[in-house]
Amino acid sequence: MAKQALYYLGPQGTFTHQAAADAERALQAYAPEGTELIAAEDVPAIIRMVQGGRGWGVIAWENNVEGYVVPNLDALIDVQGVAGFARIGVDISFDAFTLAGDSTVSHMSPVAADSVAVSEDVTRNGQTHEEHAVSAMPNVDALARLEVSAHPHGLAQCRHFIEQYQLLPVPATSNAAACRDLKPGQIALGPAICGPLYGLHTFAAQVQDYQGARTEFLMLGPRDEAPDLLQAARVQGVAEFESIIAFIPLSTGPGVLANLLDVLRDAGLNMTSFISRPIKGHDGTYIFIATIDAAPWQDSLREVLAEVVSHGDWVKTLAVYPRRERPNPPVDAWMLPTGGVHVATGTMSADAMPGDGVQGESAETTHEVAAQTRRTAHTDDWQHTAATRRELLW
Amino acid sequence: MAKQALYYLGPQGTFTHQAAADAERALQAYAPEGTELIAAEDVPAIIRMVQGGRGWGVIAWENNVEGYVVPNLDALIDVQGVAGFARIGVDISFDAFTLAGDSTVSHMSPVAADSVAVSEDVTRNGQTHEEHAVSAMPNVDALARLEVSAHPHGLAQCRHFIEQYQLLPVPATSNAAACRDLKPGQIALGPAICGPLYGLHTFAAQVQDYQGARTEFLMLGPRDEAPDLLQAARVQGVAEFESIIAFIPLSTGPGVLANLLDVLRDAGLNMTSFISRPIKGHDGTYIFIATIDAAPWQDSLREVLAEVVSHGDWVKTLAVYPRRERPNPPVDAWMLPTGGVHVATGTMSADAMPGDGVQGESAETTHEVAAQTRRTAHTDDWQHTAATRRELLW
Repeated sequence: MAKQALYYLGPQGTFTHQAAADAERALQAYAPEGTELIAAEDVPAIIRMVQGGRGWGVIAWENNVEGYVVPNLDALIDVQGVAGFARIGVDISFDAFTLAGDSTVSHMSPVAADSVAVSEDVTRNGQTHEEHAVSAMPNVDALARLEVSAHPHGLAQCRHFIEQYQLLPVPATSNAAACRDLKPGQIALGPAICGPLYGLHTFAAQVQDYQGARTEFLMLGPRDEAPDLLQAARVQGVAEFESIIAFIPLSTGPGVLANLLDVLRDAGLNMTSFISRPIKGHDGTYIFIATIDAAPWQDSLREVLAEVVSHGDWVKTLAVYPRRERPNPPVDAWMLPTGGVHVATGTMSADAMPGDGVQGESAETTHEVAAQTRRTAHTDDWQHTAATRRELLW
Repeated sequence: MAKQALYYLGPQGTFTHQAAADAERALQAYAPEGTELIAAEDVPAIIRMVQGGRGWGVIAWENNVEGYVVPNLDALIDVQGVAGFARIGVDISFDAFTLAGDSTVSHMSPVAADSVAVSEDVTRNGQTHEEHAVSAMPNVDALARLEVSAHPHGLAQCRHFIEQYQLLPVPATSNAAACRDLKPGQIALGPAICGPLYGLHTFAAQVQDYQGARTEFLMLGPRDEAPDLLQAARVQGVAEFESIIAFIPLSTGPGVLANLLDVLRDAGLNMTSFISRPIKGHDGTYIFIATIDAAPWQDSLREVLAEVVSHGDWVKTLAVYPRRERPNPPVDAWMLPTGGVHVATGTMSADAMPGDGVQGESAETTHEVAAQTRRTAHTDDWQHTAATRRELLW
């Protein structure tokens, strides 16, 4: 048997390529002969390959900073004959690469912390109202600076590293292209996979400003293969699944969404994500996309889907995959954003209320609400405070 | 009185700058002395300026293709003392600019349609499994081609124009920067505002591939000013408002969201958008963001907010602004995506069912469901068809 083709968004060395490479081990249960990774030009090309039975595909689905990759979501809703059967997360971290043996950059050292801090201070304390954008760079001769190349998003996500070495940012069409086209005396920023892929030297690892960014990818297969693939997972001992379901209520008006969710609640089903979108090309219409902790063949979800379809709504299962291990923290009051209104109830002690432990000017309103509500929980007095008026704008 | 400062994401000539310029007229009711547009380095800088009482700000909120601008959404949830008071939509269209009097490009003409079509055909019919990305360009000598510069997103959104003139794409950090740094013999792609701003010649207008992309922007002001600003709108005769409300249920588990939405439904309130997000930095927690057709001071919404807060949940009004004129089309079956399951009910005639009028192989499943359900509406037989199993994966 030939290897299973797995199409990803090219060129080689994208985060989608990294996801495809990471997925190879997870996909062994489904493709015992192994997988062959193939770069595709864009996501529509990946979907066409899967539709045509040429192989599987991997597409970015959701990022914990940027949210859903909406064009890919819309594409999966819209396409016939394609379904997701696995989900994999990739940490979005950037390594800084140089050409192997490039002596220009090998002795580079960061500038003193003092001068790095300058540009941020300029922005924070900027008092002038001239129509200009404050430069992100200390005042260093541009000709003396080495170039750093990446997609503009990559450059934006590694600002501290770039300032630290006073590099001159040069945008590229993709991080992968920056790594592929790297020249002597230049630095490229990209996923770790670019090192071995292009034979580059890793000058510094994990140089992104924000640690903890993560993108989730869906593995797509021909819809007709999905039942066998999911059966293979069950044979391997997977007992719990998640499903991504798209719903379109054919009636509209207040309560449409509440009625839909009542059915899910009454079935005891847990959702981990829920969003509304306009139907593609039809502003003012609504499609709902829910990620649910159950498989469609399990009675609880099956009965919900049957009820919703019987009611006349449109339903499509976009993906079913083994349930992820996920954090499931209780929402403690200290996690709440600043501002807003929250009164203590019997289920939460006054000690755990927002505002406690928060210092400084910026928490005044929260303090005020907390102080008010500590005295007035279980009454309606909180409705009449200045803080409540301010936070709710009523 | 001095002009009202309005901070936007710089450099000059971004779509946010375009939105700020478009907003000036809409904001006259609030700022009779006029507004002064000031470029800021990034969105956190804009928010700091608004927080500090230095002026108003404009941030991108939602795009009809890409969805919410989630980092801006998270920022507004998280920040103290800032609220949205106006909303404005900008059509995302790109003009192609040259330097005024640049003779190199003034006589440029598009290549024949035949050769433009080549690259797409290569992709669609590509049979090979080599690990490579198919080039988007016909086989033309790169040195003979003129350069076109824009942010990679801008380049991706104007592919047809670029192929038509066989231009060589050169990425820039932003479309505005591409226009600002335009050189002789080059073309830059950017918002229309870049023409007058940088004194450029508009070689061709509206060269984007996809017509109809639109980004919605929120005008932000200090939260303490919001009641007066909204009062000014009411004095000007605005009677209907929309509100963007953030909710965090302090309890979790099945039904939390349904219970919240039941309150909205029972109040007869209409929502136009609804999404869930993790609380920033806390995977596995949930915050819900709803856009509701009412103002918080109107009884229907006020009572809902009071009930939800009394229940112990966290609530914050992120923005209140005059209600937009919006399309409100009924969801007709022809709007439904391909695939999926939908059975006719008493409220929809069989003539309007999906599959009717759809031609070709790709609609087989929809045809099958339609054929099945036309015979079996009001029975449960649709549950046992191959098409239903295929679309729901149960």
